[in-house]
Amino acid sequence: MAPLKIGIAGLGHVGCGLIELVQRQQDLRLPGKVAIAGVSARSQSRNRPVAIDSYPWFDDAATLAEDPNVDVFVELVGGSDGPAKFAVETALKAGKHVVTANKALIAKHGMALAKLAEEKQVDLLFEAAVAGGIPVVRVLRDSLAGTEVKRVAGILNGTCNYLTSTMLEQGREYDDVLAEAQRLGYAEADPTLDVSGMDAAHKAAILSAIAFSADLDFSKVSVSGIDQISLLDLRMADRLGFRIKLIAEGVLTQAGVVCRVEPLALPATHPLARVNGSLNTVRIEGDPVGAITLTGPGAGAGPTASAVMGDVAKLFRPAIRPAFGRAEHHKARPFVAGAADEVAPFFLRIRLADEPGALAALTEALAKEGVSVDKLLQDSADESGAAPVVIITHRCPRSHMAAALARLEKISIPVDAPRLIRIEAAS
Amino acid sequence: MAPLKIGIAGLGHVGCGLIELVQRQQDLRLPGKVAIAGVSARSQSRNRPVAIDSYPWFDDAATLAEDPNVDVFVELVGGSDGPAKFAVETALKAGKHVVTANKALIAKHGMALAKLAEEKQVDLLFEAAVAGGIPVVRVLRDSLAGTEVKRVAGILNGTCNYLTSTMLEQGREYDDVLAEAQRLGYAEADPTLDVSGMDAAHKAAILSAIAFSADLDFSKVSVSGIDQISLLDLRMADRLGFRIKLIAEGVLTQAGVVCRVEPLALPATHPLARVNGSLNTVRIEGDPVGAITLTGPGAGAGPTASAVMGDVAKLFRPAIRPAFGRAEHHKARPFVAGAADEVAPFFLRIRLADEPGALAALTEALAKEGVSVDKLLQDSADESGAAPVVIITHRCPRSHMAAALARLEKISIPVDAPRLIRIEAAS
Repeated sequence: MAPLKIGIAGLGHVGCGLIELVQRQQDLRLPGKVAIAGVSARSQSRNRPVAIDSYPWFDDAATLAEDPNVDVFVELVGGSDGPAKFAVETALKAGKHVVTANKALIAKHGMALAKLAEEKQVDLLFEAAVAGGIPVVRVLRDSLAGTEVKRVAGILNGTCNYLTSTMLEQGREYDDVLAEAQRLGYAEADPTLDVSGMDAAHKAAILSAIAFSADLDFSKVSVSGIDQISLLDLRMADRLGFRIKLIAEGVLTQAGVVCRVEPLALPATHPLARVNGSLNTVRIEGDPVGAITLTGPGAGAGPTASAVMGDVAKLFRPAIRPAFGRAEHHKARPFVAGAADEVAPFFLRIRLADEPGALAALTEALAKEGVSVDKLLQDSADESGAAPVVIITHRCPRSHMAAALARLEKISIPVDAPRLIRIEAAS
Repeated sequence: MAPLKIGIAGLGHVGCGLIELVQRQQDLRLPGKVAIAGVSARSQSRNRPVAIDSYPWFDDAATLAEDPNVDVFVELVGGSDGPAKFAVETALKAGKHVVTANKALIAKHGMALAKLAEEKQVDLLFEAAVAGGIPVVRVLRDSLAGTEVKRVAGILNGTCNYLTSTMLEQGREYDDVLAEAQRLGYAEADPTLDVSGMDAAHKAAILSAIAFSADLDFSKVSVSGIDQISLLDLRMADRLGFRIKLIAEGVLTQAGVVCRVEPLALPATHPLARVNGSLNTVRIEGDPVGAITLTGPGAGAGPTASAVMGDVAKLFRPAIRPAFGRAEHHKARPFVAGAADEVAPFFLRIRLADEPGALAALTEALAKEGVSVDKLLQDSADESGAAPVVIITHRCPRSHMAAALARLEKISIPVDAPRLIRIEAAS
């Protein structure tokens, strides 16, 4: 498979994240080799976390877009119009595939650009434009092409979700939490695009156009944000069992596709109510698939670069892929048996004869094998005279647990076979 | 785009679900037209929910597999060996693309079949083999090709998850819940494949092979099931803040890929701990994407048929797709503004002057506009002398809410602008 030559315009966080991925592509599962044919940004000399000296430099994104060495033009410049739009059009007209993370561009000009791409028989891919690292664009467009989608709804702006989650959790007012988020880099210096709901609306419009084969018309999207939500609102809602969240949705109605972004009150048990912090979630409801929910990081250099690279991976030719996605140049790995003596915290349930010394024998057996007890719960003996005991241990080798149980066996304390279950750490 | 002719072997629930989808393909978003070139099953005359008389009948799946009229062979026969395997091999050797939902076949013979498909330059797709309607195979293989996967973990057997969830929720023993599940059709007459963990292990092995470019070797997968878990275990774990669930995982270690299925104790706050009932969930952890979680129906005729159809949709040629997935034959839909007067329950937060009659004026205004109150909470007045009130209404038109608020405005009861937020129904 021939190497794929990409030109990258825009070297901010995502652009640098992408270059880093190209440089460590031996860790990835790309169908072939990716080479960087050129890069472009406003400033060549700016300090960046990756070295770019070895790549041909282009002062102008559009010049890079039509360079004969470029197979795929990656647009990470941003902005719905201006240089980003011009460069993408230039690339498509020159017969290059385009990958972009630019939601404003796609929400505003996506239909026209898609038409241009179709005329030129090239791909226009924008996985990174919606929900960052969550591959919802391709899921909706390709994987769910065999299902009739009825509704797409989700939390598509991590900044808004972080703000409302933090306000409620920490009992702080909107302005206070926003100012802190700006200091920490979680919110932009000018947060308007996020808190007004406009950013989520761009994404919802793109998803709606895909889900419903609809003519994307952003002027019909109704948008309201979280900037009017007060701590009082969140708290009163919470006391009645609701969470207020900025929800973006597209719904298929008789008249057409209704797409809107607004704060909604969700019952605390609603799947979207539990998504806190800066995560994004998309719920797709369709027939006959039912409901599919995708959750993950909706922004950030790494997740967005991963989504861009996923699109790039699609552009190798021939388009057919090995069934397991495995190419010859991939690091091959064997399946191996798990370590016999894994170290973890354990859950041990045991039933002890209800007699003096039984619990002492158990705790002593554990102590002798160096197993440290985090929690212990003994309940009353049941009718058979056996008392259930549960122990949560600190991390220890499984062999120590086994040895402690063997000790117990010898003095025949357990009434029946103890249950030993590994505890999965919180994540 | 030329019609794609599929041959379907196996006409159980999923096969019939697929035929139903082909018959209503005008509702879907396939790149072109799908035609059924032939069907095959054990019995031609069996009563089925869809009519099959108009499709050419084949007594033998392998004969259908190599029929010159067939572009894509869809294998829904099941079983890791025997007729399913022979028919899939026959199809691949004849240069046909293959789509299958057969996890046992792919877990056992997937590598050899993939090799055969590669030699013949055809696709072997098996989205429906893992996690039913959740498109995790293509997400892992293609969308996340640009990320280094470190771990894949999830709930991959809905029957086991239903059994353990129901035991704890209803306080019933394993045998009792299993017998009921069998009566209701949630569990097989012979549930061994599910409750032993073997079904989840097949799926985990397939995902691990994709995620880590690994040589699938099922003999290295360690498997234990839920058939030894008692209500006592679940209850004692619950009292200490843990949920016991059957977790399938594949982890990348220095030595290779460790793949295992076993009951684990998860802290109640763990994302997988909250997945109850027969849902499936897969959590993919990688660098730089972070963690992506996919949740949805892991089985059932509809979701599985949707996954099969999603694979079929991939096989149209040319392989390039319009950016929004929109083909000329798709029902086009306009974006439209939402109904001005939507009907929903509403959350109304208002601050009232702390004086006699304020609350009465509010409730009266609502009553006069026919708005029925579901819940009302008034808190003490704050320092400014304003008392916050929250009302949860029953379903009513938004215009009634607006009219009630206009009434209030006139007698100037609210201290500041009320907050009106639509309530999303539980789902």
